[in-house]
Amino acid sequence: MAHPLDSFTLPSFSEVTLKKQGYVFAIVGATGAVGAEMLTVLAEQDIPIRELRLLASERSAGVELMFKHQSLKVQPISEAALKGVDYALFSAGTEISAAWAPKAAALGAVVVDNTRAFRMDPRIPLIVPEVNGALLTGREAIIANPNCSTIQLVVALKPLHDRFGLERVITCTYQSASGAGREAMDELRDQVVDLLNFREVQHDIFPRRLAFDVIPTIDQRLEDGYTGEEEKMIRETQKIMGLPDLPVSATCVRVPVFIGHCLSANVALKQAASREAAREALAAGAGIVLSEPGEFPTAADVAGQDEVYVGRVRVDRSNPRGLEMWVAADNLRKGAATNSVQIAALMIQKRGG
Amino acid sequence: MAHPLDSFTLPSFSEVTLKKQGYVFAIVGATGAVGAEMLTVLAEQDIPIRELRLLASERSAGVELMFKHQSLKVQPISEAALKGVDYALFSAGTEISAAWAPKAAALGAVVVDNTRAFRMDPRIPLIVPEVNGALLTGREAIIANPNCSTIQLVVALKPLHDRFGLERVITCTYQSASGAGREAMDELRDQVVDLLNFREVQHDIFPRRLAFDVIPTIDQRLEDGYTGEEEKMIRETQKIMGLPDLPVSATCVRVPVFIGHCLSANVALKQAASREAAREALAAGAGIVLSEPGEFPTAADVAGQDEVYVGRVRVDRSNPRGLEMWVAADNLRKGAATNSVQIAALMIQKRGG
Repeated sequence: MAHPLDSFTLPSFSEVTLKKQGYVFAIVGATGAVGAEMLTVLAEQDIPIRELRLLASERSAGVELMFKHQSLKVQPISEAALKGVDYALFSAGTEISAAWAPKAAALGAVVVDNTRAFRMDPRIPLIVPEVNGALLTGREAIIANPNCSTIQLVVALKPLHDRFGLERVITCTYQSASGAGREAMDELRDQVVDLLNFREVQHDIFPRRLAFDVIPTIDQRLEDGYTGEEEKMIRETQKIMGLPDLPVSATCVRVPVFIGHCLSANVALKQAASREAAREALAAGAGIVLSEPGEFPTAADVAGQDEVYVGRVRVDRSNPRGLEMWVAADNLRKGAATNSVQIAALMIQKRGG
Repeated sequence: MAHPLDSFTLPSFSEVTLKKQGYVFAIVGATGAVGAEMLTVLAEQDIPIRELRLLASERSAGVELMFKHQSLKVQPISEAALKGVDYALFSAGTEISAAWAPKAAALGAVVVDNTRAFRMDPRIPLIVPEVNGALLTGREAIIANPNCSTIQLVVALKPLHDRFGLERVITCTYQSASGAGREAMDELRDQVVDLLNFREVQHDIFPRRLAFDVIPTIDQRLEDGYTGEEEKMIRETQKIMGLPDLPVSATCVRVPVFIGHCLSANVALKQAASREAAREALAAGAGIVLSEPGEFPTAADVAGQDEVYVGRVRVDRSNPRGLEMWVAADNLRKGAATNSVQIAALMIQKRGG
């Protein structure tokens, strides 16, 4: 069999056995913050699941997690454990995805990968179903799930692009601790408790104290002064929107919030939009919940929700063809687990059910 | 005597008695978060002070505060209490300033007002000494101190404007609770403690819970979707920079931090600047501390400092004539108390000592 990255196609539906009793799903990285949310989202969906396998590194193997009132034991990832899997949702880190996603695909699974391992690979589609789900043919072996902040940005940009055209996007983010994983949430909580008790504050996951402070650097620092997270937002937005030359800039900032990312987007349009016209376009946009004029969603509002919330839409006072808006979403759900499950659901549909 | 707002001039230095033994200062609003910081900053300065009067509303009168190892009792504001004052620093709310600053000025005091009462009055100079201190003649009766976020923005913009010219500014802020006063800081602390103890969270100063969340609205909501705080940043920046038509947009966000405001500024320049040239200009800028390349200041770093801290300077990937930068300052000090005292010191100098 050819390397799945070269072809990124699977046998078409007619060639595969129809799974009358449902599909075999695997969650790779089931014990992480996103993995746990994948279990929750899968349990809420009506995707018929015959078997769910929870896989993780050796370190997490043995842990038991609940799925639909059933206790499932986490197994170490292996070729044997991946055999027979129809849909594998990966969220166990870039290294694990780079090593195991091609193997899972070679074994016949559709892989939805929530790491940066394949996102910018031109052979791999980077999908947000509301935005570019139409690209999927149902024959893809590996599909990349974008960065959390990027997902909520592009969902909000899509209806504006369709109606007015995008010229340039500048964004600043307000990203929660959970974007750095479960241990990062624990670290924030411990820092807050230590500070309130006049104890010395420790940091390990974050480059410095996050409690009662903000950290304007996420991921590695690049040569030109941007960060890895900002580069993801720039390049992934261009790829998902199908606008490789769209000028995008981003400043990504960690804030002391547990769950829910917010961002402010300054969007220059090709055609001027009134505030009302922009609101109309956004209100009709797929996957968007629009606040009343002047109102806004916050991280606390969107935690546990699957939609992207948009508020504070206004015409940019510094550019008559510009808009300012505020976008919030649950980074563990729409920013990760929900989007991955939506991609799997779309693939099931494209492959003929 | 003419209304001080019509003339906004005081007797010139030659007409006033030379205060050999120093000046009589008053702090109006001495019990507030900014007022307390004014006491600290005044004690640190070498301005010769013969007498310091602490004034406040009836509600706070009687409170005792320390100044240079001396206990001073807060008095209710009155014409008698203002008589003989040389420099009156107001920070007791817009209504008190609107009512009392003209009276103080009519009684011969130089008023430095840290509310929005006079900031946009074309007769009143709005001053950040490093940026437009040269406008002061020494004959002004009332001088306005800008909004906290505006001050740190314009200090960082000034050297870029001088060297490359400003074309447009877009900013997003990360503002601490103390910008809303001492009670707001208490509210944030109480909310955090209540949340950690599974108690119901209250809010009164903030429009909703700030603990572990961000609130993208500060001050009143305006008709076009901007807020009062954002309008201040836009208009005050234009006035202080002397660029009334400079396109500026702002998104002002409260974050769960006690002291220190941060902001991200996307600056379009008339002339392109390399990252190195921009860093050189900023490093030489008055009142600026520049971080090493890739490094950044946070709210925790700048709390208690008088300078404006700039980091993460980079050429905007979405505009070759643009820069992105991160700016942090202590909103109670350079954003309020320090800047007010610096204005008073500059007036003392302009008036001939």
